[in-house]
Amino acid sequence: MPYQDVKASAQAALGVISTATTDTKNRALIAISAALDSARDAVLLANAKDMEQGREAGLDAALLDRLALNPERVDAMIEGVRQIVALPDPVGEISQLRRRPSGIEVGLMRQPLGVIGIIYESRPNVTIDAAALCLKSGNACVLRGGSEAFHSNQAIAHCITAGLVEAGLPAGVVQVAPTADRDFVGAMIGGTDPLCDVIIPRGGKSLIARIADEARVPVIKHLDGNCHVYVDADACVERAMLILENSKTHRYGVCNAAESFLIHEALAAQVLPRLAAILSTHGVEIRGCERTCALIEGAQPANNDDWSTEYLAPIVAVKVVDGLDSAIAHINHYGSHHTDAIVSENYTTVRKFMRAVDSASVMANASTRFADGFEYGLGAEIGISTDRIHARGPVGLEGLTNQKWVVFGDGQVRT
Amino acid sequence: MPYQDVKASAQAALGVISTATTDTKNRALIAISAALDSARDAVLLANAKDMEQGREAGLDAALLDRLALNPERVDAMIEGVRQIVALPDPVGEISQLRRRPSGIEVGLMRQPLGVIGIIYESRPNVTIDAAALCLKSGNACVLRGGSEAFHSNQAIAHCITAGLVEAGLPAGVVQVAPTADRDFVGAMIGGTDPLCDVIIPRGGKSLIARIADEARVPVIKHLDGNCHVYVDADACVERAMLILENSKTHRYGVCNAAESFLIHEALAAQVLPRLAAILSTHGVEIRGCERTCALIEGAQPANNDDWSTEYLAPIVAVKVVDGLDSAIAHINHYGSHHTDAIVSENYTTVRKFMRAVDSASVMANASTRFADGFEYGLGAEIGISTDRIHARGPVGLEGLTNQKWVVFGDGQVRT
Repeated sequence: MPYQDVKASAQAALGVISTATTDTKNRALIAISAALDSARDAVLLANAKDMEQGREAGLDAALLDRLALNPERVDAMIEGVRQIVALPDPVGEISQLRRRPSGIEVGLMRQPLGVIGIIYESRPNVTIDAAALCLKSGNACVLRGGSEAFHSNQAIAHCITAGLVEAGLPAGVVQVAPTADRDFVGAMIGGTDPLCDVIIPRGGKSLIARIADEARVPVIKHLDGNCHVYVDADACVERAMLILENSKTHRYGVCNAAESFLIHEALAAQVLPRLAAILSTHGVEIRGCERTCALIEGAQPANNDDWSTEYLAPIVAVKVVDGLDSAIAHINHYGSHHTDAIVSENYTTVRKFMRAVDSASVMANASTRFADGFEYGLGAEIGISTDRIHARGPVGLEGLTNQKWVVFGDGQVRT
Repeated sequence: MPYQDVKASAQAALGVISTATTDTKNRALIAISAALDSARDAVLLANAKDMEQGREAGLDAALLDRLALNPERVDAMIEGVRQIVALPDPVGEISQLRRRPSGIEVGLMRQPLGVIGIIYESRPNVTIDAAALCLKSGNACVLRGGSEAFHSNQAIAHCITAGLVEAGLPAGVVQVAPTADRDFVGAMIGGTDPLCDVIIPRGGKSLIARIADEARVPVIKHLDGNCHVYVDADACVERAMLILENSKTHRYGVCNAAESFLIHEALAAQVLPRLAAILSTHGVEIRGCERTCALIEGAQPANNDDWSTEYLAPIVAVKVVDGLDSAIAHINHYGSHHTDAIVSENYTTVRKFMRAVDSASVMANASTRFADGFEYGLGAEIGISTDRIHARGPVGLEGLTNQKWVVFGDGQVRT
């Protein structure tokens, strides 16, 4: 199908889905989950084909693991769609409606962003998760997964189309790239007449950086998760130990895992040896500043790159700092504006940290691992944004909408 | 001054201004307005130099008019800054703070966007308006005006710096490009280490389109203002006449002036001859569809380009449509998603129009001319966005902020 047809189809579908009732959208989601339930065998068969080709092409084990579907993963996909049915629909909400001196009433109405393009890599579950979130928020979407997942994505696409049609919605509401052709990405993100209004890339940093660099339409993206925990002079040490351990070791390969610890010098001698003992039980390597290395036997000296590295591994950079201002300056300079936490019992210190740290999530006395759409009550997320405009942090249904101004008058004109 | 120094200066200043109290920011604004009041002669002298060079360079009359300052325009600049003092400060507002099942409290806190780059053309008043709005919203900014206004902008910059210093704030809070050099724009918007976090271009469409195309950082922008008024079958004809007249003829060169009228066929015979009579008193040229031309003597036939043109002139495109759906489809297809209005007394029709038209401002029974920061109660605006993400429509202080997540815990960790 030529790109122009995909665009025309998405635009026409957007006219329908953007004003569809919540009931209609939920009916479609239920029909999609039922279609997927009925098509388990076909989906697993298609996935087996991708896996076989992937093994032949020499894909590494991590990539093959992300690509693989099994009955449990299909269950999780079905359950994910059902959970989105239960979420409140943000579209149409009117807020701040106020009467102005001229007599007009002015407010803001939430509405879909438009045609959203999602560009992602091997995980086939993104196909259905992204489709369900876009659909519920009234957007049309064009999904372009990795070529290694082509057959899996086509099989899932078949279920999505069946569900849409059963609910009386146009198939153009969700279009899965009909080709593994790389030029399709170019058509989605740029050129003189881009297919999409907004692009959300999901996957490895290099993919995201490349899409963001090449896109000629707005991009909602996640780059690094270089998250910090700062242990203040007035920290409760027991809480600090739990939060440090959990932030680093609960899971290593996730964007909200801590990668750097900053320890106030007043507590360094007390905290660092205990921390080292805990981390050693997890096999976590410490890369420390000079003062850290003096207090922790076996710590490797950190170099300047360590302060800005997202390890996604059992490694942590540790620095002793002389106070709150140094900690804030370090985080705002070396951090990735994702999630940063303070451990402190001091009212004024916590207030200053919360205001001054410029990150999508700023936390007091809680593990960085809470930076998550489910934990925040969004229900589900399309991703976590590290951008400065539009939505920051976990992006749920509301982040897939914008607010337009609505004006209700009685014949008013400007004089 | 090398770009790196401008960047370092802006980053350091951001650390201060982003957490400054409203009182401090207001003191700086008052000091800036006083400095400008005292420096009237110097500013007018600098402007005279720009005007002389502009005349020598053969700038056209419209450009010279935008460039020119006089005592009244300086008064307006001073008054503009004072009005911003009176506006509420959006920074630090916490909303939606809710306790989650885990016991953490999660909410959203408003904070500045960062270092904002404003790239604009000849009007020197933008220098002070933009500086005041960025300062009040806690952002650092780098302002790059047109080379034709270089001396005027430097004289105004001098007043801004004096006011900042008097209030004890770093001069780096507002930096006016120290050079008329075009490479400076490149450093602001892109490269491997962009000077700015967000760019707001202001000026003609070609400047904005070029900046948006080249920028590697997010852009908040205004492109076209191709605004429509749709007169429905159930319109009050008297209201329709007033709104059509006001939307088109109140001012021609502004982005919220109507450029196209859509008239329901049921009212065409009644509305169009009266409309033609009114528009002829204003000397407005009508370019109509076939049915319009049949009802209005002297109307020129419209071609396809007319439906998407922002005339900014006494010209209007007029089309007879067969109903609401055609009107909505026409607006969403040919419009620029800026401001579009319906005139109708029908409850269901108005509701559908408000929901289905995908524009930054959607109006019922009011002139498109109301799409304005002052009329909406924002107090002042940095511009009107036609983007789909972040702020849409008039962008005031709130549009110069984002919301980060704040999490307050009592030692919670993920299990």
